[in-house]
Amino acid sequence: MPVLILVRHGQSQWNLENRFTGWWDVDVTEKGAEEARAAGRLLLEKGVLPTMAFTSLQTRAIKTLHLALEECGRLWIPEVKDWHLNERHYGGLTGLDKDETREKHGEEQVHIWRRSFDTPPPPMERGDRYDPGADPRYAGIDVPQTESLKLTIERVLPYWQSDIVPQLAGGETVIISAHGNSLRALVKHLSNISDEDITGLEIPTGQPIVYEFDEAMQPGERYYLKDS
Amino acid sequence: MPVLILVRHGQSQWNLENRFTGWWDVDVTEKGAEEARAAGRLLLEKGVLPTMAFTSLQTRAIKTLHLALEECGRLWIPEVKDWHLNERHYGGLTGLDKDETREKHGEEQVHIWRRSFDTPPPPMERGDRYDPGADPRYAGIDVPQTESLKLTIERVLPYWQSDIVPQLAGGETVIISAHGNSLRALVKHLSNISDEDITGLEIPTGQPIVYEFDEAMQPGERYYLKDS
Repeated sequence: MPVLILVRHGQSQWNLENRFTGWWDVDVTEKGAEEARAAGRLLLEKGVLPTMAFTSLQTRAIKTLHLALEECGRLWIPEVKDWHLNERHYGGLTGLDKDETREKHGEEQVHIWRRSFDTPPPPMERGDRYDPGADPRYAGIDVPQTESLKLTIERVLPYWQSDIVPQLAGGETVIISAHGNSLRALVKHLSNISDEDITGLEIPTGQPIVYEFDEAMQPGERYYLKDS
Repeated sequence: MPVLILVRHGQSQWNLENRFTGWWDVDVTEKGAEEARAAGRLLLEKGVLPTMAFTSLQTRAIKTLHLALEECGRLWIPEVKDWHLNERHYGGLTGLDKDETREKHGEEQVHIWRRSFDTPPPPMERGDRYDPGADPRYAGIDVPQTESLKLTIERVLPYWQSDIVPQLAGGETVIISAHGNSLRALVKHLSNISDEDITGLEIPTGQPIVYEFDEAMQPGERYYLKDS
């Protein structure tokens, strides 16, 4: 039966520094790397071994994937990287300290930007120091200037349907190493969570979440692998 | 213009222990990991940045690739892993200490197994402790029981033609992270080296070798990136 494993990247440098990150390409910290390795050891211990991997174009997700796969002896499985699995683009907030942003714009406004389903933060100016538009990894891609969770979902789900579901339907055990909001998009879809509730759902870092599918490709209840 | 970068994996645990390795999946040593990182720093320094990666199904080549790509900021490029780029299969010699094998079979016989173009070592028995036949990464593959360099070439070159040349022809800067003998197969082909001479050609570990191609997809002289 098809199995899906979701892993949010381990702690990044900007998680640690409490800054809005989005599409900016920060690395995992040593703690984040250890979270990734621990996720891999858990996959090995539980015998839930991926046969196919998907990740974003962002270093923190790619490294989390590689460290986890190495620990469970699966570094050799096919691996696809795609921008559709990137983190939500945080627009003009990218790079800002979250506390400073609260002082500047007010607690309520920041809460709306972070937790509203469909209100995107202010757009990033082209040429902003954190604009990934000139990064060669995004050549040929219409890089967004900002995204709400709703907009994030609107690019994650078509990719899920076109590229990932067929692999699951073919019987693969798929691991997706991605980000808080691109994983929220998948969990919302698979667990049928409302627009209101999804924004408050926290995806913990480095903690494998599992869905098992039936023959009709219907997902069962999601669970944390550590609890199984 | 298309560019090809060849990198032999950094020192492995069995390079260090002086044992025949072949398809057995040993890891790189810390020295080998550092060789891989140095290769990546050289790519960055010289501005020869890969846009597409190929590697074998063996951990030492995959990790070398990942470490090198991380150092040059290219962890996000597409990456294909394929058994056709695996090391030559050393048959029944796999796992044996090279000095002990010389004592047992004689210097001359070991020299023939190591350096003959078309004499394979004795075949590995199915079920040998170093037989990779039961490894899930080789499911569906007719795993050889031994290979000469000639047999290695006969599986590397068709893959080169079918899967790698089209990427180069499309203008990609391709990096291949592989093994002493799978890389010998490519160098023999691209530099038109005789059957007699190729067996003595050493491919140093972690040292990027570059070929630039012209519009007719003819390779120029090979060179070490460090010398450019």
